[in-house]
Amino acid sequence: MTTPATTTPSAPPTYADVAAAADRLAGIAHRTPVMTSRTADRETGGSLFFKCENLQRVGAFKFRGAYNAVAILDPEQKRRGVVAFSSGNHAQAVALAGNLLEVPTVIVMPKDAPAIKVAATRGYGGEVVFYDRYTEDRAAIGRRLAAERGLALIPPFDHPGVIAGQGTAVKELIEETGPLDLLFVPLGGGGLLSGSALAAKALSPNCRIIGVEPEAGNDGARSFREGKIVTIDVPKTIADGAQTTALGHLTFPLIRELVEDVVTVSDAQLVEAMRFFAGRMKLVVEPTGCLAAAAALSGIAPVAGKRVGTVLSGGNIDLTTFARLVAPA
Amino acid sequence: MTTPATTTPSAPPTYADVAAAADRLAGIAHRTPVMTSRTADRETGGSLFFKCENLQRVGAFKFRGAYNAVAILDPEQKRRGVVAFSSGNHAQAVALAGNLLEVPTVIVMPKDAPAIKVAATRGYGGEVVFYDRYTEDRAAIGRRLAAERGLALIPPFDHPGVIAGQGTAVKELIEETGPLDLLFVPLGGGGLLSGSALAAKALSPNCRIIGVEPEAGNDGARSFREGKIVTIDVPKTIADGAQTTALGHLTFPLIRELVEDVVTVSDAQLVEAMRFFAGRMKLVVEPTGCLAAAAALSGIAPVAGKRVGTVLSGGNIDLTTFARLVAPA
Repeated sequence: MTTPATTTPSAPPTYADVAAAADRLAGIAHRTPVMTSRTADRETGGSLFFKCENLQRVGAFKFRGAYNAVAILDPEQKRRGVVAFSSGNHAQAVALAGNLLEVPTVIVMPKDAPAIKVAATRGYGGEVVFYDRYTEDRAAIGRRLAAERGLALIPPFDHPGVIAGQGTAVKELIEETGPLDLLFVPLGGGGLLSGSALAAKALSPNCRIIGVEPEAGNDGARSFREGKIVTIDVPKTIADGAQTTALGHLTFPLIRELVEDVVTVSDAQLVEAMRFFAGRMKLVVEPTGCLAAAAALSGIAPVAGKRVGTVLSGGNIDLTTFARLVAPA
Repeated sequence: MTTPATTTPSAPPTYADVAAAADRLAGIAHRTPVMTSRTADRETGGSLFFKCENLQRVGAFKFRGAYNAVAILDPEQKRRGVVAFSSGNHAQAVALAGNLLEVPTVIVMPKDAPAIKVAATRGYGGEVVFYDRYTEDRAAIGRRLAAERGLALIPPFDHPGVIAGQGTAVKELIEETGPLDLLFVPLGGGGLLSGSALAAKALSPNCRIIGVEPEAGNDGARSFREGKIVTIDVPKTIADGAQTTALGHLTFPLIRELVEDVVTVSDAQLVEAMRFFAGRMKLVVEPTGCLAAAAALSGIAPVAGKRVGTVLSGGNIDLTTFARLVAPA
């Protein structure tokens, strides 16, 4: 298959962009395993396929979108460099992408960020700029750095190159499983969900796509039903990767068009899923990474008789927190 | 490649038996992933390949040997059934193998075995016979059941079909990685090590094979050096799958002939490895399953500049214990 021309960065991405991103990521991102569980299938009555992005580079799907977004920059922009801010996996993904593509990266991090995250970011060659998260606005700092130093800002989800890159995980999933009846995808800002939806609709047109949010952070479900972007306060949930307060201007229309429904799961259901993955499937999956699987495993969305894809989106959680959550009370 | 004729069950197994076992297991055992870690490579200076048998059916490599040993029985013996005793993964592996091959299984378990293990064994269709581990000898019960009911006893390691089956994991590993310089394999009774050595010597003749035991249970290292099977008391170690007291009469000569050395690692080094797998590679690996990797990661055996295979042999550990071990103090 030849790589189609890609959409320009300002237009919404299409499946052609996902396919082009997959070509860029070939041999660079891990083609993560798709795992199955007879226990899960017996308990739900469905055929469940778990796409293990917890085993991706930097421990999360975020590497796909970050790498693709940096790779599509023009040579002059690559020479000047990029800037990213994120408390989670996106910043490290951008730092690693910059390292691999020889593009300078500036990562804006809170000055009280865990030392291990700062060291990892610097280990990838990223320049770390600290801010005070109680008194300063990281987005403003990012924009100022971008303007002053001519850097390209790589946002965590509302960017066509990021969305297209995130879609490559579900492209790989469906290439391996064949057509699916249902696909569950974690929903925070919508980069993974909208990219996944582009891939699923192209490769398995009858597949119904369900976004899954934490109960406390249901802005996506509300936006989906109300037909406009609803903004909420930072939600209190263990799913720290889905503590976004609003969908993006690029991701929301794609989700409205391509996604069947948005459902929510409780933190208790996330913990139950984490225990299932650790105890039965021998996998460390972070709470946010369990969103999709929790919807399928908990029976919130009926899966009996269906072929069901779920994206385990990441595995980054400190071991103290992990141990506390998975140890039976 | 055609499948060579297999050795008769009483003779020591050869690589032809491993190849024949691989054909029997094709599509039945998982072809488990081989994972790599840039962090591990950077820290050791080697190129490490982790064969993830913690992701195997029943959570351990034991399924391979058990299935192969049951599969090679003659039709009349299959009709009568098999018996196994084991406190660990072997018994469940035999129960599952019997289920898949429609061979009746009797599993001898301590009457205070965890309810979840009893339920899992019965879930596979195994008949559970309880014994009192303070007053009764499970081996004697196994032999009596075998004699009275005409059952074939499937021992956990000292059996040509079991050894040949265990060797299939390393066969897959080397098929995927190409030739290796070093191969580390956990050592308990020697079924996995001797089978792995048969595979490695056939597929990567210059590969040096190292068995790895827990420090407290160094009967294998002593036997290897003294040239005779040394028996020890049940060792006190968190590596419960390597709490064997002596090598087998089939496994010992194979290990003497094919294995370069036997080294030991401490429980603290096993915990360090468990934390590495959980924190960096997002994998749950039981203490015994970390033996081989701990030797490579801890620097006990120098791996710099080498292509190094390690078998992560299993992931079965209750979550309370797992959480206690991996949580930083």
